[in-house]
Amino acid sequence: MIRLAVDVQSGDFGPDVMVRGILIARQTSAIPFVTYLCGDGAQIKCVLDDLEKELSFDRSEFVIEHCPDVIGEDEWRSMIWKNRKGSSIVRCVSLQKEGKADASISAGDTGILIGTALFTLGRGEGVNRPVLAAFIPTATHSNPVLVLDVGANLNCRAEHLASFAQMGNFYVSRLFAKPARVALLNIGLEQSKGPKVVRDTAALLEKESWYSGFIEGNKVFSGDADVVVCDGFLGNVLLKTCESFYSLASDFLAGNKNVLELLTQKMDVLNPENYGAVPFLGIKGTVLKAHGSSSVRSIRNAVLTALNAVKNNVTECWR
Amino acid sequence: MIRLAVDVQSGDFGPDVMVRGILIARQTSAIPFVTYLCGDGAQIKCVLDDLEKELSFDRSEFVIEHCPDVIGEDEWRSMIWKNRKGSSIVRCVSLQKEGKADASISAGDTGILIGTALFTLGRGEGVNRPVLAAFIPTATHSNPVLVLDVGANLNCRAEHLASFAQMGNFYVSRLFAKPARVALLNIGLEQSKGPKVVRDTAALLEKESWYSGFIEGNKVFSGDADVVVCDGFLGNVLLKTCESFYSLASDFLAGNKNVLELLTQKMDVLNPENYGAVPFLGIKGTVLKAHGSSSVRSIRNAVLTALNAVKNNVTECWR
Repeated sequence: MIRLAVDVQSGDFGPDVMVRGILIARQTSAIPFVTYLCGDGAQIKCVLDDLEKELSFDRSEFVIEHCPDVIGEDEWRSMIWKNRKGSSIVRCVSLQKEGKADASISAGDTGILIGTALFTLGRGEGVNRPVLAAFIPTATHSNPVLVLDVGANLNCRAEHLASFAQMGNFYVSRLFAKPARVALLNIGLEQSKGPKVVRDTAALLEKESWYSGFIEGNKVFSGDADVVVCDGFLGNVLLKTCESFYSLASDFLAGNKNVLELLTQKMDVLNPENYGAVPFLGIKGTVLKAHGSSSVRSIRNAVLTALNAVKNNVTECWR
Repeated sequence: MIRLAVDVQSGDFGPDVMVRGILIARQTSAIPFVTYLCGDGAQIKCVLDDLEKELSFDRSEFVIEHCPDVIGEDEWRSMIWKNRKGSSIVRCVSLQKEGKADASISAGDTGILIGTALFTLGRGEGVNRPVLAAFIPTATHSNPVLVLDVGANLNCRAEHLASFAQMGNFYVSRLFAKPARVALLNIGLEQSKGPKVVRDTAALLEKESWYSGFIEGNKVFSGDADVVVCDGFLGNVLLKTCESFYSLASDFLAGNKNVLELLTQKMDVLNPENYGAVPFLGIKGTVLKAHGSSSVRSIRNAVLTALNAVKNNVTECWR
């Protein structure tokens, strides 16, 4: 039985939305699991009581993990993992360290979650820098493309980018149980193109069977690669730009209900809700960062991703 | 009378498409202009003869500038400006140097065009690095946002980015005859966010009245800024990603004619054809780079942009 820890206090829409997402994932998942619900115990109990009135579920699959600490706005964020062990974000990661959970999900502050994961669980063998990775859906393939880094490392040397490529390859080939094609984001396909750090990374990777060369911005959605590697500054801007496309398209068609429905149906592949949550790679354990404004559907998809990651042992290589 | 020089031999679809674009611009423009058509003289004459059969235009507004040189695949690209003065791409820029044209447009190789513009016309007073800028349409505003650099400078120091910001401000405020809001692309809005080079650039710009602070990837299309500044690596990836989104949306709806028409109409603002061409800033003269696969509509818009740039004297500050 897989055991998840979810920081249900972390989303913008409160524990109700987080718990609903978990319940819907439980209904659709072929893999049984139990969930530690980390947050305000009394509030979580009320949410479960209310949900029982409209949905049918097995309450024994939920463990309320009361977390009394609340993090103040002005607290020193890089020390939260040490100073606020009773907060829901730290507690859900600690449950992994204590061997009670196999994976954790939080929609809380990225910096706090990175610090907590890194210092509580530790970085994997041979991992220089843990990395934040995000799935972007593609038009042609059923599998999305993993983009990394999307914000954990702003300044990267070639050996860092090469290590991201290796982690991305391992994660994706394990998660989807098939070989991955890993590409480096660049401004052209020829060997001589792009900044020196990208060309140096290519030289480090050229002998890897899974390395497929450079990829340009206009091919990120094409499904030509399963993993796209770049530094965290570029990756973060790219990810946010992709997110804004979807809302822009929806805005354009807001006045036109029929077309909007058709578009939503057709372009749903680009909806950021489908990403669910983004994994930290290189940490000894499966930690997923969900979007602050996660919907029921986002949390459902985050839970399904976590289950898949645990089932396929995706963090095994750097444990 | 404004005089343009157009490298009609440079587009993927040949002189016919390029000349049609110019003719349609001439029909819609309130500003009269004459055009030097640079390329194979005999071929251009045939194109004009054929077009006369279906369109009505004043042939005296076109000057055929025969360019006998053809650039080989293996020629040293950075010396083309010197070794191939009789090629259409070099000739159209040279006509500016000779005082015969006020602006030039080419859909040819970016590197050759940058080199030719830089060494034939020279860089402006006080300009450290000329820069390639691109317009991206926005949803909310009638004016598009200018993104720079989009590929001329891959590694930039803070003083380079600050200089791009200044050029962008000047160009946009002149072109649209109203004050511009210039933002720096970053991964967060707080002063402490992002790579050092971006924070250092912010410090150099903070006293400028037109500087509006950081902007994130998801706000590039929002119309919150008129100019978005970043290095050429990031800008190039961003621009290409934007282009691919439009074709992706069209692909999704390809089987659904009615919806595709409605979407095309609504989302036309995102169509890269609307950009027309991207200007080099910091060169002593107006040089526009059109997309290699420019359509009639792209060339029409490139011509209208060139006319507007000349009329508003946008390169005056660094001449």
